[in-house]
Amino acid sequence: QEEAQQIDQELFNEYLFSLDQLMELAGYSCAVAIARCYPPESLKKDHAAVLVCCGPGNNGGDGLVCARHMKLFGYKPTLFYPKQNNKPLFKALALQCERLDIPTLSFFPTDPQCIVDSFNLVVDGIFGFSFKPPARPEFASVLEGLTNIQEKVPICSIDVPSGWDVEKGNPTGLQPDLLISLTAPKLCALHFKGHRHFLGGRFVPPGLEQKYGLRLPPYPGTDPVVELKMPPNSQQS
Amino acid sequence: QEEAQQIDQELFNEYLFSLDQLMELAGYSCAVAIARCYPPESLKKDHAAVLVCCGPGNNGGDGLVCARHMKLFGYKPTLFYPKQNNKPLFKALALQCERLDIPTLSFFPTDPQCIVDSFNLVVDGIFGFSFKPPARPEFASVLEGLTNIQEKVPICSIDVPSGWDVEKGNPTGLQPDLLISLTAPKLCALHFKGHRHFLGGRFVPPGLEQKYGLRLPPYPGTDPVVELKMPPNSQQS
Repeated sequence: QEEAQQIDQELFNEYLFSLDQLMELAGYSCAVAIARCYPPESLKKDHAAVLVCCGPGNNGGDGLVCARHMKLFGYKPTLFYPKQNNKPLFKALALQCERLDIPTLSFFPTDPQCIVDSFNLVVDGIFGFSFKPPARPEFASVLEGLTNIQEKVPICSIDVPSGWDVEKGNPTGLQPDLLISLTAPKLCALHFKGHRHFLGGRFVPPGLEQKYGLRLPPYPGTDPVVELKMPPNSQQS
Repeated sequence: QEEAQQIDQELFNEYLFSLDQLMELAGYSCAVAIARCYPPESLKKDHAAVLVCCGPGNNGGDGLVCARHMKLFGYKPTLFYPKQNNKPLFKALALQCERLDIPTLSFFPTDPQCIVDSFNLVVDGIFGFSFKPPARPEFASVLEGLTNIQEKVPICSIDVPSGWDVEKGNPTGLQPDLLISLTAPKLCALHFKGHRHFLGGRFVPPGLEQKYGLRLPPYPGTDPVVELKMPPNSQQS
């Protein structure tokens, strides 16, 4: 979606936000939304174990920040981060996770039942709004694995469900249970059929909101997230 | 306090946190603590007008971030930022405030009654834990002005009340109504006689907490702040 890219560029170029800043707020808001939907104390498997899958781009960076905050919230996250980004910020975010004793899976289990057995939920930070289908084979197989177990383990997608076209969605692909849109919902969110939809990334200046006609709902109080109502005709699974 | 400096250095050098990241989380937590104590809708003067005073160092940077989040929370902040820091991060933080239509006072009112008349509260982000008394004359007069009106307008100090010795405090100086300790309370917090004391900056890794024997209270849920109980013998003003 061109508009999402333009808004990002304005945040960086006109407002001089750093990627560090925005990613920190975005990842924090994802962790808060997840905690609203699946509080750590409600998760039965292995001390609130969760799998956080991170791709090589900014969506993966949001996932790394999310994993760190989830750890501080009392979850037991494990990373799957097969194609690591070499930029200094990403290396630092990964090291912060490591220093917080967040382990990394060295490969994706060939039997996805292992994930069902070990984790209460999966955070999907694989691809974001810059993704253009099709996924490379290595990620396609991960997405297929997650699609196979999504009835048994809820998937929480950051901004855009991975493998989706940012406008048209992907009817046969991943169907997350929770979607956390960042900055503003992308067009594909209209095809989201999961249980709950949050908006996070409370950093959009009112001027930018007006310029792009975003009509974002007001965030309550000091919350970093706001739950979005599902359209009345949406299928609740 | 040497220890505070050491902890900062470890966060930067061992955990590779960037100042952008930590300042963003710290400033956000200050804004949340202030909103807990003085919700914008409870403030009568001029649409929740608040004055945010920022010094030239990191404490001032926290103040700039705090002002931006306060604006998004519904306050009407005005900055007083007389000695601007020229580092790129600080210039960016100041520009973000400007682009959010946060005005800057060009000088401190000689008659402090103007502040009492115009603002509901003052955020004190002038000096932090690196400050060593005495303050330069230009800031000393600002601190004196704030001390003169503190009975009429509550002062919210970020991390260390400005003008205080970080260990011994300052019995004749500024006496804030709210103190928001960051990372961990400094020794001088024992001399704090205001109403409420919060801890913010929820980014201290458990390993660091143990190493320095910080014994921080647990943050509830996903909150970025936790209220600290005042010692039973403390004077509530």
